[in-house]
Amino acid sequence: MQRGTIDLKPSDLAYVPFVSVDNMMRNVRAVGVETFLRGLADYIEQDFLRWESFDKKPRIPAHAPQGVIELMPTSDGETFGFKYVNGHPGNTSEGLQTVTGFGVLANLKTGYPVLFSEMTILTALRTAANSALAAKYLAPPRATTMAVIGNGAQSDFQCLAFKELLGITEIRAFDIEKAASLRLARNLLDSGLNVTICKTPEDAIEGAQIITTVTADRKRATILTDNMVGAGVHINAVGGDCPGKTELHRDILLRSDIFVEFPDQTHIEGEFQQLDRDHPVTELWQVYSGKAPGRTSDGQITLFDSVGFAIEDFAALRYVRDLLPKTGHFEKLDLLADPDDPRDLYGMVLRSAACDDDKAA
Amino acid sequence: MQRGTIDLKPSDLAYVPFVSVDNMMRNVRAVGVETFLRGLADYIEQDFLRWESFDKKPRIPAHAPQGVIELMPTSDGETFGFKYVNGHPGNTSEGLQTVTGFGVLANLKTGYPVLFSEMTILTALRTAANSALAAKYLAPPRATTMAVIGNGAQSDFQCLAFKELLGITEIRAFDIEKAASLRLARNLLDSGLNVTICKTPEDAIEGAQIITTVTADRKRATILTDNMVGAGVHINAVGGDCPGKTELHRDILLRSDIFVEFPDQTHIEGEFQQLDRDHPVTELWQVYSGKAPGRTSDGQITLFDSVGFAIEDFAALRYVRDLLPKTGHFEKLDLLADPDDPRDLYGMVLRSAACDDDKAA
Repeated sequence: MQRGTIDLKPSDLAYVPFVSVDNMMRNVRAVGVETFLRGLADYIEQDFLRWESFDKKPRIPAHAPQGVIELMPTSDGETFGFKYVNGHPGNTSEGLQTVTGFGVLANLKTGYPVLFSEMTILTALRTAANSALAAKYLAPPRATTMAVIGNGAQSDFQCLAFKELLGITEIRAFDIEKAASLRLARNLLDSGLNVTICKTPEDAIEGAQIITTVTADRKRATILTDNMVGAGVHINAVGGDCPGKTELHRDILLRSDIFVEFPDQTHIEGEFQQLDRDHPVTELWQVYSGKAPGRTSDGQITLFDSVGFAIEDFAALRYVRDLLPKTGHFEKLDLLADPDDPRDLYGMVLRSAACDDDKAA
Repeated sequence: MQRGTIDLKPSDLAYVPFVSVDNMMRNVRAVGVETFLRGLADYIEQDFLRWESFDKKPRIPAHAPQGVIELMPTSDGETFGFKYVNGHPGNTSEGLQTVTGFGVLANLKTGYPVLFSEMTILTALRTAANSALAAKYLAPPRATTMAVIGNGAQSDFQCLAFKELLGITEIRAFDIEKAASLRLARNLLDSGLNVTICKTPEDAIEGAQIITTVTADRKRATILTDNMVGAGVHINAVGGDCPGKTELHRDILLRSDIFVEFPDQTHIEGEFQQLDRDHPVTELWQVYSGKAPGRTSDGQITLFDSVGFAIEDFAALRYVRDLLPKTGHFEKLDLLADPDDPRDLYGMVLRSAACDDDKAA
């Protein structure tokens, strides 16, 4: 735009890069899903290593009988980010997603958004990357076999992330609906993973060094009972993620060393809600930064009580933002008013009307 | 989409109506700015009349030395809404807006967003509509003259809203920068309002039944001193809207009956921050619903200590949502993943890759 002319089109200042669902899939394919998962894990680890520089709060929920909508904001003092996410377990019966989301990164110095992105796919990816990252520090060394109990939308991503980051080769899959396990096995056909469909949870955990629970019921369920869990395993508990929704018997928690993202939130949403608030847990950022031990013995049961935390979404949005210049898979959204004179918002509306008149004339 | 076929395009479920800045201006022009302001005021009044059905919280801020980014969520149990808004007073020196924003309405029963909209222009409009709505209950009857101190981006909208809702005909404008007043006068040239540019604040309030203060400095300023404010006026204090930013001398507050949106927030952000927490104030929803009196005498000084509240944005988004089917001025955004099988998110990514392969073949 030249000085002194009136250009009624928005300038670059007015545009926010937008990653649609279609473009998110293009971005994943552009680098490959495994590389994308590794990239997310790297960014999450980077942000957990500077944990103390983040403004951390529990998510802000709006509840309904059918589910919850949550805002998850955080900031590192330079950049602000938040995710909008819902959890509605009954949605699948109406052909809708249980969990959808979108997110924003913004420059805290100007307040201007710098990225608007779908986060349904991105959340599925970051949740899996986050689980595998935690398992790098907590799972038994040289683990090859993972039980996956609950074979819904998140399970594929978990399998791929554990293959990429831990070298898992064998998946033992169980779901109360066999069709779900078949779907998982079919999707992983060309992944390099061997998938064994199991008839019971007991069967699934046979020989597994890692047990991932990722069921979707919104209630207190007991996917794993105490006698099913042997010494030395790592439990990656992903499905218990809101008040009243848990997957593990309390006795398993009492035998495990529990690792969490942010205790204030895990206490409300995770398996941890079955325990007293003062039950000892270890924060993952302390493990990553060497301030606290991860796995310390062969017989130890480690448990990552995953609920998902705002900093993981922040890291995922950072990863996508940094990827876009390489892939070009984004659009520009006319989201910000950009008048020639910032004090003249109404003038912008007036002049755009004049422009319409010209067209009509 | 037919059963049994694979349609790789997103279904209608995946799309969210999006109102860009350009389309917001088209919507305003389609109905006319005055009608738009009146519609906003009606929707805000409706929502204030069902105040107790809303989930109310103070906004959630992220602070930086340069400004603040805030999320403002609320819900009426059926619909969830939030606004993202920033406030960066130094932005204008870099050609950026001081305040920009966008917002979302969502169905709380499914968690799916139903509207994504720019809110820079919409916030300017709803702030003005909200001020005029309050003044309908608080200003002296048959007021004709309004002083407007601070002639920035919000001032035009204030003038137009007070014209439309209260029948104001005379504007007495003052700004420390005369260029701002000239800009305001120019924009209102065809509005039917008479604009007098004044040399001092004292001059501006001469003969005014309503005094609107809407300056932009982020500090404790004293735009009005006590001796300037005569009996019987209504003060519409819009500019003091964050911690440390006020416009009125404390003695004016002590002589006024103070009306607020949401005391918990006004106490932090409004003129009210100069007073003790237990200083009496009246909530506007109580006035609108007849539970508390508005103006009670000719000599009374009424003061609306405006800071902006989430329910006003919720109402504004509702108004826009209801307007869109009539105007058609919106786009559809591919924001939500919509796999054929909601449990098969990764399958959607896989199949979209197959689609690319087909194209390449």
